[in-house]
Amino acid sequence: MDLAARIESSIEAALLAAAQTDCPPRLADALHYAVFPGGARIRPRLTLAVALACGDDDPAASDAAATAIEILHCASLIHDDLPCFDDADMRRGKPSVHRAFGESLAVLAGDALIVLGFDLIAASPMRHPERMAPLIRVVGRAVGAQGGITAGQAWECESAVDLAAYHLAKTGSLFAAATVAGAAAAGAEHELWRPLGETIGEAFQVADDIADHVGSTAVIGKPTGRDKALGRPSAVLELGLDAAVSRLKSLVGRATALVPPCRGEAHLRALILTETQRFVPAGLVAAAA
Amino acid sequence: MDLAARIESSIEAALLAAAQTDCPPRLADALHYAVFPGGARIRPRLTLAVALACGDDDPAASDAAATAIEILHCASLIHDDLPCFDDADMRRGKPSVHRAFGESLAVLAGDALIVLGFDLIAASPMRHPERMAPLIRVVGRAVGAQGGITAGQAWECESAVDLAAYHLAKTGSLFAAATVAGAAAAGAEHELWRPLGETIGEAFQVADDIADHVGSTAVIGKPTGRDKALGRPSAVLELGLDAAVSRLKSLVGRATALVPPCRGEAHLRALILTETQRFVPAGLVAAAA
Repeated sequence: MDLAARIESSIEAALLAAAQTDCPPRLADALHYAVFPGGARIRPRLTLAVALACGDDDPAASDAAATAIEILHCASLIHDDLPCFDDADMRRGKPSVHRAFGESLAVLAGDALIVLGFDLIAASPMRHPERMAPLIRVVGRAVGAQGGITAGQAWECESAVDLAAYHLAKTGSLFAAATVAGAAAAGAEHELWRPLGETIGEAFQVADDIADHVGSTAVIGKPTGRDKALGRPSAVLELGLDAAVSRLKSLVGRATALVPPCRGEAHLRALILTETQRFVPAGLVAAAA
Repeated sequence: MDLAARIESSIEAALLAAAQTDCPPRLADALHYAVFPGGARIRPRLTLAVALACGDDDPAASDAAATAIEILHCASLIHDDLPCFDDADMRRGKPSVHRAFGESLAVLAGDALIVLGFDLIAASPMRHPERMAPLIRVVGRAVGAQGGITAGQAWECESAVDLAAYHLAKTGSLFAAATVAGAAAAGAEHELWRPLGETIGEAFQVADDIADHVGSTAVIGKPTGRDKALGRPSAVLELGLDAAVSRLKSLVGRATALVPPCRGEAHLRALILTETQRFVPAGLVAAAA
């Protein structure tokens, strides 16, 4: 099974387990709508790629880690799109969850997916159950109040913002969890994998800023020009477009150099190169070059 | 240390760990504001009481379970009070989190507390780490989309509501988790403890309906008369006040009879009787009688 198929089947199983009996039908619909069809599933593919590069001796653990990270990512998108934050009408090419189901169900769907993210790790039939606690802590750190996604979003509510902390928390943290959890699931020395994930996350953030600046809603699947409209920090607005594109290239180079020694090192490096090239939709690369 | 002090100290430690470095200052304030000063801490006291009745041979595990349940309860109160749900101005005698910090930080504080609830169980230095997965699953079930608090709140978004499922999910589920997790933390056969928790939860719900009907904001610390105003199901509106009071008494009687065999059985029964009598504030008992 290729990585994408393995991830989709694991996410489907998790959703099915979370929303069968005793789940109010509209909430079940909202959960499914928020998770399928997915985006590029970049983070969970990264988790599995790292786990495989480290031997992947406990596939139930790496599946759980990858799935939890994607589910928590989906939860954050739902809440980010709410009227009190970005008030976004579109996401992944269709109406955002709060536009499709109303604000109440959007809040609840986000909450339910956060719960599911942790519950599915606890439910995983791991071969090495001693890896469960570190996995939950890695994922919890990535989404919590202390440098996680929640902190990232909350920096937008402060008058004085620490920009580096903001970007690291809002985007870098979950990419860091993707690499660290992949290594932890395979029993590797996992904290060594944090700089790689953080750097890929930074590259992704710059690519996202570029896409927001030069893209169109039709290509990106969500509204563009939002950074400027909402006064959000953006690499393009700070550095200019050309320098932002150079920065993206340099971050990708740095990321490939940060892969820790592991048995699948060369393959993983090549994969990171391919994957990061897909961060900016093909049509935009020419426009941005 | 008495139960209340043990719980407060455990909650304080969890909050401190979650909101020290890398936490945006207003988010840290909102988290503290949402959790302190607490309400009656009924659920975590129940968790510890059950753990003690079962021998409490792993206090780190029972502390973590009790704290997680209270933290997740606080998270649900923040989100319940949001404008898109109850739009409540007051909670525990002071402005609700969204009134004090704004809607964005209220959503984020709720999210961060959900994450913390699970993370703190994973961080617990349990003597019996094999109890971690069952504890997380018990807590996850209580707050998730499948019969948990999220499901309970989501029933309010359905046109056809299953009333029994609604009450069990919205209130019973976390009380059930309180007894079941207390037993699981102490290594007892934990699912035997579910009917007790569900029945105490049902009694609490009826008591809450009575307080909403006959109480005043000054005594209750939150707006009253909301069930009628919001068209929410209520035992008082369904049965009348006298029958609701009888029902509360009968549920308390049933609960004491449902305590499973354990070494602290008699003491726990007496405790349940005392605790449930405090469900309705003293001044209201006479008014409701």
